[in-house]
Amino acid sequence: MQIVIDNLWVLFSAILVIMMQAGFALLEAGSTRMKNAGHVASKQILTIGIALIAFWVCGYGLTFGEGKWIGTNGWFLNLAQSGDLKNEVSFFFQFSFLAVSLAIVWGGFAERAKLSVYLIFGLLYCVVIYPVVGHWVWGGGWLHDLGKQDFAGSTVVHLQGAIAAFVATILLKPRLGKFNSDGSANSLLGHNQVYSVLGVLIIWIGWFGFNAGSTLTVKDGFYTYVALTTHLAAAAGIFGAMGMSRILTGKISFGSILNGVLAALVAITASCAFVKPWAAVLIGFIAGVVAIYTGWWIEKRRIDDPISAASVHGIAGIWGTLSTGLFAAPDLVRKVGVGKSGLLYGGGFQQLGVQTLGIVVTISYVTIASFLILWALKKTIGIRVSKENEQQGLDVSEHGVYGYAEHFVMKVSRQKKEVS
Amino acid sequence: MQIVIDNLWVLFSAILVIMMQAGFALLEAGSTRMKNAGHVASKQILTIGIALIAFWVCGYGLTFGEGKWIGTNGWFLNLAQSGDLKNEVSFFFQFSFLAVSLAIVWGGFAERAKLSVYLIFGLLYCVVIYPVVGHWVWGGGWLHDLGKQDFAGSTVVHLQGAIAAFVATILLKPRLGKFNSDGSANSLLGHNQVYSVLGVLIIWIGWFGFNAGSTLTVKDGFYTYVALTTHLAAAAGIFGAMGMSRILTGKISFGSILNGVLAALVAITASCAFVKPWAAVLIGFIAGVVAIYTGWWIEKRRIDDPISAASVHGIAGIWGTLSTGLFAAPDLVRKVGVGKSGLLYGGGFQQLGVQTLGIVVTISYVTIASFLILWALKKTIGIRVSKENEQQGLDVSEHGVYGYAEHFVMKVSRQKKEVS
Amino acid sequence: MQIVIDNLWVLFSAILVIMMQAGFALLEAGSTRMKNAGHVASKQILTIGIALIAFWVCGYGLTFGEGKWIGTNGWFLNLAQSGDLKNEVSFFFQFSFLAVSLAIVWGGFAERAKLSVYLIFGLLYCVVIYPVVGHWVWGGGWLHDLGKQDFAGSTVVHLQGAIAAFVATILLKPRLGKFNSDGSANSLLGHNQVYSVLGVLIIWIGWFGFNAGSTLTVKDGFYTYVALTTHLAAAAGIFGAMGMSRILTGKISFGSILNGVLAALVAITASCAFVKPWAAVLIGFIAGVVAIYTGWWIEKRRIDDPISAASVHGIAGIWGTLSTGLFAAPDLVRKVGVGKSGLLYGGGFQQLGVQTLGIVVTISYVTIASFLILWALKKTIGIRVSKENEQQGLDVSEHGVYGYAEHFVMKVSRQKKEVS
Repeated sequence: MQIVIDNLWVLFSAILVIMMQAGFALLEAGSTRMKNAGHVASKQILTIGIALIAFWVCGYGLTFGEGKWIGTNGWFLNLAQSGDLKNEVSFFFQFSFLAVSLAIVWGGFAERAKLSVYLIFGLLYCVVIYPVVGHWVWGGGWLHDLGKQDFAGSTVVHLQGAIAAFVATILLKPRLGKFNSDGSANSLLGHNQVYSVLGVLIIWIGWFGFNAGSTLTVKDGFYTYVALTTHLAAAAGIFGAMGMSRILTGKISFGSILNGVLAALVAITASCAFVKPWAAVLIGFIAGVVAIYTGWWIEKRRIDDPISAASVHGIAGIWGTLSTGLFAAPDLVRKVGVGKSGLLYGGGFQQLGVQTLGIVVTISYVTIASFLILWALKKTIGIRVSKENEQQGLDVSEHGVYGYAEHFVMKVSRQKKEVS
Repeated sequence: MQIVIDNLWVLFSAILVIMMQAGFALLEAGSTRMKNAGHVASKQILTIGIALIAFWVCGYGLTFGEGKWIGTNGWFLNLAQSGDLKNEVSFFFQFSFLAVSLAIVWGGFAERAKLSVYLIFGLLYCVVIYPVVGHWVWGGGWLHDLGKQDFAGSTVVHLQGAIAAFVATILLKPRLGKFNSDGSANSLLGHNQVYSVLGVLIIWIGWFGFNAGSTLTVKDGFYTYVALTTHLAAAAGIFGAMGMSRILTGKISFGSILNGVLAALVAITASCAFVKPWAAVLIGFIAGVVAIYTGWWIEKRRIDDPISAASVHGIAGIWGTLSTGLFAAPDLVRKVGVGKSGLLYGGGFQQLGVQTLGIVVTISYVTIASFLILWALKKTIGIRVSKENEQQGLDVSEHGVYGYAEHFVMKVSRQKKEVS
Repeated sequence: MQIVIDNLWVLFSAILVIMMQAGFALLEAGSTRMKNAGHVASKQILTIGIALIAFWVCGYGLTFGEGKWIGTNGWFLNLAQSGDLKNEVSFFFQFSFLAVSLAIVWGGFAERAKLSVYLIFGLLYCVVIYPVVGHWVWGGGWLHDLGKQDFAGSTVVHLQGAIAAFVATILLKPRLGKFNSDGSANSLLGHNQVYSVLGVLIIWIGWFGFNAGSTLTVKDGFYTYVALTTHLAAAAGIFGAMGMSRILTGKISFGSILNGVLAALVAITASCAFVKPWAAVLIGFIAGVVAIYTGWWIEKRRIDDPISAASVHGIAGIWGTLSTGLFAAPDLVRKVGVGKSGLLYGGGFQQLGVQTLGIVVTISYVTIASFLILWALKKTIGIRVSKENEQQGLDVSEHGVYGYAEHFVMKVSRQKKEVS
């Protein structure tokens, strides 16, 4: 009977995490411009479509099949059931994480990449990038054997996605109009903060599935503890980010409220099961502070990261991965059964070293693989739409009509009148 | 204990399916014009209200009460519990399907029907249309006895809704401005593709409840298999529809991404429990192709089907119902215990014949009943708003103010200026 | 095993209720003006943030700790588990109710209060207002001992929130432009009814968790009965409100469809477990009628209640609390084990008296406490933004940019042109 309940719990968690795709669609559409809104939102449906098919055909096998460096069986989900969860349930749960990671990746493409590049890179990300680090950390690979702590994927899901997004954003170059010739930045403001707020709320709620679901069982109630640390961190992240926004700009920006929650959630994802509530609050608060600061710093370096993937998922993912090396409590480490206690509990630098190693190899692998794929695409089919198409918007260039058909009719007809 | 969990599972599934109403509100509002947006969205609340009261008073009894042709007891849910599910749980689950069916129906009314006609036809649909076919297929009626396979309602929910919508769209005639005097069609573009995307994502997720919930139990984990076939089909539908859109128009339209998912989900709804994953992929892919093609074909015939109910729910519903006659696998048919194997597994034409019969009688009954009701309304109170009201929009004519109060103030004040 | 399932059920219910925050963000943003939309929506993230931290630190202990007048232990959730639910699960569930109550409070602040006042009053509401009445009714306090019936919080959650909102709306004074010098009212129409509809649908669905979850167990299936009464009432509320809107204004306003559902849900919240389905329908219908009428009446008194908190959560909360004194059925009262039967079942006036007493002390305490806090804030830091800031909108004044960056660039640039 416990098995029946656990399967239901994990499928329910998968549904919550899949729902996060609606959150990403809203957050990304709200954070970008009207002329690209239909394109930005609808590609989220492609995220699910590609990830679902690719993970079923071979991604799941590559990640969770047998093998030291990569899985070598389990195509089409033909795999002996391991543990109590049915293969279908494990599949949906793990697929939902891959889809979140791919959503983060595609954030770096926003407002200038060709639809065909989304499709090709997306497919390859699901097959040759994500499964590799996924296998190393979660699929019984060498990082797992070293005791790498990444409970629900600060490294596997978020850092991987952020690195690929960052490589893409560098290779694509900044959006037209983002930087002036003197190097100063313009705000290409998101067009709809209501969407962004709704997106973040959906993503936040999805994290009940993301972290608490990663216990894979409801037997001893530990999932409720994981939910508590997760959401305390998220709440604390808001206030850290608001404070940093106030310091940097004098105002509590929308972005600080939204990214404060997200950065804290990203950070606590690795550590939620390993740390005490007070540490969760601290981890979340620092994540909020750091994400806003590094987001500001990256823009100063003239890098155009449209939805802040590098700071919110990358830097916060690194901080979260390192945080267990500091705060992992002995009783919780024993309970989870992965790695050692953190520095503050007398565990010394060992766990911090393992965490650092995991970060370094993840960044290295994903940077190289993403760069090679995108560089090859750039040299062949090209990765960026034409200047004309970018100015007109990707709704029209990639899909033939505006996502806001009436707003743009209004705008265009007015401009014509002004010209005449 | 199993009973307790099953009740919880089915109520959870009902909640997911009820949530699809939010998806329909967004999809329909996004696919229509700004001047009707408040009206189109808010009528979705009426869908739930009417269906809930009508199904409680007599619809549930008519569908699931005893009787060969129609249920004759169970008013106000006064019914002996059948099976393990509490009456309240069965009620919520079955109500959620009726509400989806009614949402599809009302799609055919969009942008020109009077609010009073929504209310009257909606009530009658819940009482004299849906329960009849519902009883025949799911309530122990004659089609059930013949072995009709319709696991979660390609016929009962989707085809019925699509037929009523189609009859309405024919009787209401095309929207003003849809067709030119030479017969060519104008695109009355939906005003907000972000809404449409969010709507489709909510509907897609709701299908975990729709199909997997229709197992009515989590005991043997079969619900997870049903979830797998369902979502593989949906993913495949996207790519089928995108390809057909590319062929027909040269672009990957928003509509193809959105309707590809939906058509595939509609099609797999009948067959999800009867077919293998590879067949699910094929069924979904073909559904995507066919829905986009027939949607294009219907417009060419000068029929204005505002939210593509006929192609996405009708044609795909027919294809899905027929698909079990082709692909139903013997081991799964035995497991579900309804009907025979399909043609490809040596089952011959028998099951295909039963499926076809079910389609023919459903189309016949719903066409006749819907026509009679709407024709009577047309001859008495009228079913369409005045030309002036349609031009101004139904937000104002039916509710007194614009749903986008500030957008239209802006527009109107600008027009005045231009005139003066 | 039952305990494991009950914990899961209550956590799931908490998730549904937390999701209602997304509903409030949409409903409030949709019901207010574009220039404030980002501010109105994003403050909902602060609702969760403040409530989560404050309730964890001391709010939960104050509400559910030991003590006659107020809880005196349980800080940081250090509390012996009472009953079968884990502390974390009880915490999330109870936090979700506090957060709804705070969302209602902040409705009274809309479009003119300073962000700092939201933060300070919000914190104090979570610590010195909500926990007091919460403890009296649900935390083993004196109203509980008297047999006060408030199954899921018509009084504790909704009436408290509405009273604080009402005090705020009185002290803040009407929004600029709401009333003319002759006392007549202008409609400051909400800018997006699609948001409002989506918000109400999310809130409605959240009520499965709100009321049915308040059974705290799925053991005997009683939660499904509670879900039935809840949703029948909601459906009936729509039609009551639509009728009253028709009578008052000649049209079926958007507000009547939306607030009819909400008022009915608020009213049935106290009584859902105590009354028969027919009574639920009646309670909901009357709530819809009364909410629309009192909303209209309040505006006539020149009080500007931007999101109708006083009528929808206040008056309907009072009606719902009183309704058990009329309709509480003996068998259900025995089952729940709180209070006595209602007047119609021969219970006399006793229960009605207890319900009335609960309403009177709640209104008294919350009015005094809210007034003192807001009055002190008004005299010190001020509670309302400057006239210039209010005209420009709180998106800019409180956050530095417009939430609809492109809409307002359009508008401003056009105005400049007109001026020049």
